[in-house]
Amino acid sequence: MPWFRNLIHLSIATACKRSPSRKAVFPAASPPPSLTQIFLFSTQAASPTAAVSGARRRTGGGVGQAGLGPTKGDEKPRVVVLGTGWAGCRLMKGIDASMYDIVCVSPRNHMVFTPLLASTCVGTLEFRSVAEPIGRIQSAISREPNSYFFLANCSGIDFNNHVINCQTVTDGVEALDPWKFSITYDKLVVAAGARALTFGIKGVEEHAIFLREVHHAQEIRRKLLLNLMLSDVPGVSEEEKRRLLHCVVVGGGPTGVEFSGELSDFIKRDVHQRYAHVKDYIHVTLIEANEILSSFDDRLRTYATKQLTKSGVRLVRGVVKDVLAEKIILSDGTEVPYGLLVWSTGVGPSSFVESLDIPKVRGRIGIDEWLRAPSVEDVFAIGDCSGFLESTGKPVLPALAQVAERQGKYLATLLNRVGKAGGGKASAAKDINLGDQFVYRHLGSMATIGRYKALVDLRQSKEGKGVSLAGFTSWFIWRSAYLTRVISWRNRFYVAINWLTTFVFGRDISRI
Amino acid sequence: MPWFRNLIHLSIATACKRSPSRKAVFPAASPPPSLTQIFLFSTQAASPTAAVSGARRRTGGGVGQAGLGPTKGDEKPRVVVLGTGWAGCRLMKGIDASMYDIVCVSPRNHMVFTPLLASTCVGTLEFRSVAEPIGRIQSAISREPNSYFFLANCSGIDFNNHVINCQTVTDGVEALDPWKFSITYDKLVVAAGARALTFGIKGVEEHAIFLREVHHAQEIRRKLLLNLMLSDVPGVSEEEKRRLLHCVVVGGGPTGVEFSGELSDFIKRDVHQRYAHVKDYIHVTLIEANEILSSFDDRLRTYATKQLTKSGVRLVRGVVKDVLAEKIILSDGTEVPYGLLVWSTGVGPSSFVESLDIPKVRGRIGIDEWLRAPSVEDVFAIGDCSGFLESTGKPVLPALAQVAERQGKYLATLLNRVGKAGGGKASAAKDINLGDQFVYRHLGSMATIGRYKALVDLRQSKEGKGVSLAGFTSWFIWRSAYLTRVISWRNRFYVAINWLTTFVFGRDISRI
Repeated sequence: MPWFRNLIHLSIATACKRSPSRKAVFPAASPPPSLTQIFLFSTQAASPTAAVSGARRRTGGGVGQAGLGPTKGDEKPRVVVLGTGWAGCRLMKGIDASMYDIVCVSPRNHMVFTPLLASTCVGTLEFRSVAEPIGRIQSAISREPNSYFFLANCSGIDFNNHVINCQTVTDGVEALDPWKFSITYDKLVVAAGARALTFGIKGVEEHAIFLREVHHAQEIRRKLLLNLMLSDVPGVSEEEKRRLLHCVVVGGGPTGVEFSGELSDFIKRDVHQRYAHVKDYIHVTLIEANEILSSFDDRLRTYATKQLTKSGVRLVRGVVKDVLAEKIILSDGTEVPYGLLVWSTGVGPSSFVESLDIPKVRGRIGIDEWLRAPSVEDVFAIGDCSGFLESTGKPVLPALAQVAERQGKYLATLLNRVGKAGGGKASAAKDINLGDQFVYRHLGSMATIGRYKALVDLRQSKEGKGVSLAGFTSWFIWRSAYLTRVISWRNRFYVAINWLTTFVFGRDISRI
Repeated sequence: MPWFRNLIHLSIATACKRSPSRKAVFPAASPPPSLTQIFLFSTQAASPTAAVSGARRRTGGGVGQAGLGPTKGDEKPRVVVLGTGWAGCRLMKGIDASMYDIVCVSPRNHMVFTPLLASTCVGTLEFRSVAEPIGRIQSAISREPNSYFFLANCSGIDFNNHVINCQTVTDGVEALDPWKFSITYDKLVVAAGARALTFGIKGVEEHAIFLREVHHAQEIRRKLLLNLMLSDVPGVSEEEKRRLLHCVVVGGGPTGVEFSGELSDFIKRDVHQRYAHVKDYIHVTLIEANEILSSFDDRLRTYATKQLTKSGVRLVRGVVKDVLAEKIILSDGTEVPYGLLVWSTGVGPSSFVESLDIPKVRGRIGIDEWLRAPSVEDVFAIGDCSGFLESTGKPVLPALAQVAERQGKYLATLLNRVGKAGGGKASAAKDINLGDQFVYRHLGSMATIGRYKALVDLRQSKEGKGVSLAGFTSWFIWRSAYLTRVISWRNRFYVAINWLTTFVFGRDISRI
């Protein structure tokens, strides 16, 4: 009876408390637990300093420690990537893991397929279908002995010594102290992204929800469903019902428009059926200071305006002055009560990028034609946190997924070429040909504006000529294009299945 | 240009601020916003008492208000159901909505398919696949004008006046005050479930995670993935790694065993591949004071013990005395450090049931052969919160999903019969034949114990004779049986798809 054996083990363990022996490894698939395994508990129980202290947790300070000090001559060079957005993930996907060790530092362990995030808020897609774990994007990170993913933030960079300082992210779990550690890099790629702009407006951070991460989408969904249920409670006044079910979106860019479209579709298709008591109280208002979808051509913009209005979204031109807990105040004094406030007014430099002592362009890390930060050695910057230096004569590129992705792909090729030519190690790439400069060609823009309707603008610039489409065909192109862009087959499969089930069964409305 | 029109609307609205006109209803699919719509904002802006106050929110006090006071002669009788577990949901599914108005009060708007909850913790199944919204179980609640679902807790019952008092659940969203309201019932069904037992052990509520709701599974998953990543951080000591990755399950019932099995399978199949650096540190310990799976027959129990041990789960017989933040202390003084602690030691009466002034049996609401609480009129109790009174001569049934479900089904038939005979209204069922008594026949027990292995015990009682199986066939039966029991086709489809993708692609490891 294994049960009985265990009982004996435990008794022996308790009796042998002072034994100093300890074994580091617990085989996961082992025969019944052996004595050495139980000793782990016993020695700890016996130790008078068993209380967990910060000091006990660590065995070393980071630099100089195995695997994270400077790479030795016979080791592979180490590429450190900060961030797991479009830029960082595309880069990691492309890096030749037989040539480099890859170390990724980011506060999230997955990439978010941002164009489909708005769809998850109302249950058209599941949250998990738009999240891709890093380990699937670059499997070396899970498997290779010197490649790592660290759930951490970078708190500073010592460019002279090729070292970054990091701090773990524990989001409040049992008030764990964050652990600090440092990593020496041979090549550093900053792909740390940007942060949502609030223009210094009071109350935005406290009361509005951004739409950039999966947890934002989860929060929006929970709040929307909560408000739908609260508004049905007996005794709630008409005015309060209307407030609770007033969904206000600030910002008329693609994210704001797509979210408004999804929301109005959710209202028409699902709220009318599943929340029949309160369906007449829910409405969506989109507030924008300028034009909606300003990057699209006039014809498409007019079409979008018409379609959104037709599906019940109220478009209001206004500037938000103040955000309070249950209403926003526009600059002309109009008060707009709301139950859900989604904020999507573009992005600006993050405080991490601001803190870096390095030349900037409009707050972004200044880069040259090969995406290097030329004032320091072996440092590259891609995605929303970077911008071409004036000396390059190139414009600062827009903060778009396709820019970030293209830069990541380009840089992977560049680093692989450098590595092949023997320039992978720190300060070893001085005389190596970096190849062609990075050139960005805009492939066009897409945005969905609700059920079976989307815009596709294939012009290379706002002034350029080219195809622009609106309507069902665009919607079909939009869905097909994104389906092929989703990174893994697993998620591609899930997105298709989600779309199918939403079509057949309607959206899911459980508030979990 | 609709855009321009909106701008004009807004200006007009601002100019007309003092207008008293207001329209209650915003048509969801309307032409461009009209003036009356904008007036909503303007009048509020003009009002000096626009600040939202508790008083303004409500128009009435509950009882006596339309739809929730006593039902009138020409209205359908109202069945109020407390709870959305197995019992309440099966009941609501079966009630004839043409005969009764159904009002459901519960702190969650969905039913959880509890037997599959353990699988969601490690990503075998998605969370949403095991949650079924009430609106899909009984569509009258979303559609019928006098049927409702309220996201609320029942705080008390006035049996004499046929009234329940409720309070909304807002789980801390912007510190909303809960709203109080009351509902008059014709028939009341208490299906409020039970709460997890902690046996008064200190620290369980703070540090352990139960496994009863979807949010518990989400918390377990987030913590497990966080610990896997934290343990890989440079500088973490061997001892701390081992602590972080020590998953302790307390309680050897089906839930604890199934979770341990899933976890060990996750470790063998996914951690070894995706967290290769730390795979040797993770291990699972199952602590039980008596025997594991005590309701199963000896042969199956021996088999389960062997299989669990083989797959790396350490079975420890012990009694937990104290739970601290990073270790538990057993009654013999052994200290067991842990990174994740899951608590599953059965259920006992909830504080709500305890608060009811009504005869109890072992803390549960005492019921007669027709599931009525006989000391009060028109009140029934089903599921884990109820137990047969001694006078019935029947044993108190175990807190099992199949008991709850069978009771829900039986009571739906009973209420439909009573309604048909004209006894649906309050105090109107005195002389009506209630039909056959409720008789419970145990159909058997099932539990999975990891990859392709399960137990199926089809005996009617522990002492009875019948088929009992263990191994792959059982596992196949287990999966098939649950797949057919999942309530909606949508979730049935999703569970099958989840199983398929887990099989093909492995489990998902993004921490969202």
